Amino acid sequence: MINNIQSVGIVQTKFYTIEEKIQFESGVEFGPITVAYETYGTLNENEDNAILVIHALTGDAHAAGYHSENDKKPGWWDDLIGPGKAFDTNKYFVICSNILGGCSGTTGPSAINPQTNRPYGTSFPVFTIEDTVKVMKKLLDFLKIKSLYSVAGGSMGGMQAIQFVISYPDFVKSAILIATTARLSPQAIAFNAVGRNSIISDPNWNNGDYYDKEQKPDRGLSNARMIGHITYLCEEAMYNKFGRRLQNKNHYDFNFDIDFQVESYLQHQGQIFVDRFDANSYLYITKAVDYFDPCDKYGSLTNAFKNSNAKFLVMSFDSDWLFPSCQSKEIVNSLMKLGKDVSYCEIKSPCGHDAFLLEYELQSKIIKSFLNDHIKGDYNEQALC
Amino acid sequence: MINNIQSVGIVQTKFYTIEEKIQFESGVEFGPITVAYETYGTLNENEDNAILVIHALTGDAHAAGYHSENDKKPGWWDDLIGPGKAFDTNKYFVICSNILGGCSGTTGPSAINPQTNRPYGTSFPVFTIEDTVKVMKKLLDFLKIKSLYSVAGGSMGGMQAIQFVISYPDFVKSAILIATTARLSPQAIAFNAVGRNSIISDPNWNNGDYYDKEQKPDRGLSNARMIGHITYLCEEAMYNKFGRRLQNKNHYDFNFDIDFQVESYLQHQGQIFVDRFDANSYLYITKAVDYFDPCDKYGSLTNAFKNSNAKFLVMSFDSDWLFPSCQSKEIVNSLMKLGKDVSYCEIKSPCGHDAFLLEYELQSKIIKSFLNDHIKGDYNEQALC
Repeated sequence: MINNIQSVGIVQTKFYTIEEKIQFESGVEFGPITVAYETYGTLNENEDNAILVIHALTGDAHAAGYHSENDKKPGWWDDLIGPGKAFDTNKYFVICSNILGGCSGTTGPSAINPQTNRPYGTSFPVFTIEDTVKVMKKLLDFLKIKSLYSVAGGSMGGMQAIQFVISYPDFVKSAILIATTARLSPQAIAFNAVGRNSIISDPNWNNGDYYDKEQKPDRGLSNARMIGHITYLCEEAMYNKFGRRLQNKNHYDFNFDIDFQVESYLQHQGQIFVDRFDANSYLYITKAVDYFDPCDKYGSLTNAFKNSNAKFLVMSFDSDWLFPSCQSKEIVNSLMKLGKDVSYCEIKSPCGHDAFLLEYELQSKIIKSFLNDHIKGDYNEQALC
Repeated sequence: MINNIQSVGIVQTKFYTIEEKIQFESGVEFGPITVAYETYGTLNENEDNAILVIHALTGDAHAAGYHSENDKKPGWWDDLIGPGKAFDTNKYFVICSNILGGCSGTTGPSAINPQTNRPYGTSFPVFTIEDTVKVMKKLLDFLKIKSLYSVAGGSMGGMQAIQFVISYPDFVKSAILIATTARLSPQAIAFNAVGRNSIISDPNWNNGDYYDKEQKPDRGLSNARMIGHITYLCEEAMYNKFGRRLQNKNHYDFNFDIDFQVESYLQHQGQIFVDRFDANSYLYITKAVDYFDPCDKYGSLTNAFKNSNAKFLVMSFDSDWLFPSCQSKEIVNSLMKLGKDVSYCEIKSPCGHDAFLLEYELQSKIIKSFLNDHIKGDYNEQALC
């Protein structure tokens, strides 16, 4: 329901098809690729107010507004995008697209391969964050965007924002990197690996060929999501949300049904996820995330960023143990070594990694200030943190 | 191979059957129960030198020594148990039994139900840590142990040691609680829940009735073990062991095979686990661990411990994030409130929760000193930490 005067209102997802083949980092040439995207606000005459907002692991192009009058839930970053909000659509032209390999409109393993008229499944090529960014750049070219006032993303969205700066250093004036990392820790790789293993172990996965089957790999995907959710919360968030409280009972059941609230929460998260996400997309996207490592690829993060003239805002959350603050600090340090204009803010939050989707108030102020000062060109680091 | 003069040598697992039914905490009466156990050293004339050593989640009764001349691997705590070692078998009579519900000799869901001549499967009653301790006490009665010089355990073994002190306060002279907790955090419950879900989601689990089937729920069990192993290590241990190094390759494979060493390690751990452990046992034992909460059951931990006259040694590891030091401190604080004789040591280690099975040198010294001073009755807290 649209009860928010700061809403961008009713929006619709649009589609653009890149007809020519794109060379992926693996060497494979792949196409055509349809990209699902939404835009909010208007591109100004100078064509210098475009902001690319990039979603996290399981997000989509619907970042703000509502799809219909009866829509109950706005886009995933609606608290930050709209008239007068952090990404102020009175000022900025905000673009968000669904990731390559996704399952919300952009071509991915669940899309129909025009060569076979069947879903790609695992014949879809494995891609990288560099590839996902390449696809986004093609969309921006189509939209006649000559430069980005800013590129912003949280978590995996932040990784893509990093890669965008690296791949197109002259194109990007500023970057907002939230709760992200320049490379996954072995622990984070491990969680992704177990999630993927859970899907691949599900007999209904059927080597990725399940789209016309009655049974889908829902159990494996659901389990992968449950693992993910543990990493998105933190100890404190879990104590606050659930503690050791039982779910609708006063005593243990002495069976294998759900006893604890935290079990019920995770099971619910797993169950609702399978209705909106594709198991193969989960495999491909987590693999791209695991592979992301500009430090290794360019010799060092400093080397990776060296051609950029962007201003940077890096934010992390002190309770985020998936992409802990030290990983944001690694990014900040490499930018400082290069003498780049970088601001860093560690936000105190009890929400863990999920904070980037929850702690709107402070994030809004910081982003707004960063984008404004950035216009004025006298961005004040002290004012933020 | 026995190349260690400090070894207890060749040992064998023995069995004792509790013929009478035991009342479980759920109210169910269950029996007979066969208990697999091993002993090392000799009970002295005064019958006051018995030490009960309790294994962790997937351990067994074989805590020390070798089962044959050609045995390549000694018992799981061989570094600590033997002549001249921390649990000095020249001085102490050490007993270790396989947990109720286990799959290494003690009656569990894989055992044959004498009523049906078929494995119990999920008709096995859900039990608690109080029940596992009750079974151990029956074994000690059979062995004519009148009191325990000490009860010691790491991780879930420590939980059972805690419960032993609570259930039989007059029976226990000292307790050694290592890398353990008086109650699982919601995060730890969550990991267990996802592990169980992984097993239950495996179609080969077949409601727990798989013992005569060709296909067992190996994939689910293996995945559960992989999740477990992530929690047994820590970030630092993972960086040290694996970093982001690739497994037998220099470049990404761009497919869903194993790329990273950490993936390979976890998959290997999962694969070897299914050869030695039963999926139903994993369900039952993790449930008992989740249920363990003397704080809730007795109103407070202080109340739970109030009748004990034991001396306590509590040890935790600073990198253990599964049962972090603050949980050990909770135990220590409640004992101190009661004026009990308690020593606490937080050991610096880069090994995470696994440290209790790895950091032998310091643990040995501390345990040895604790047990010696305990004999002398002038235990010196300062000397330890």
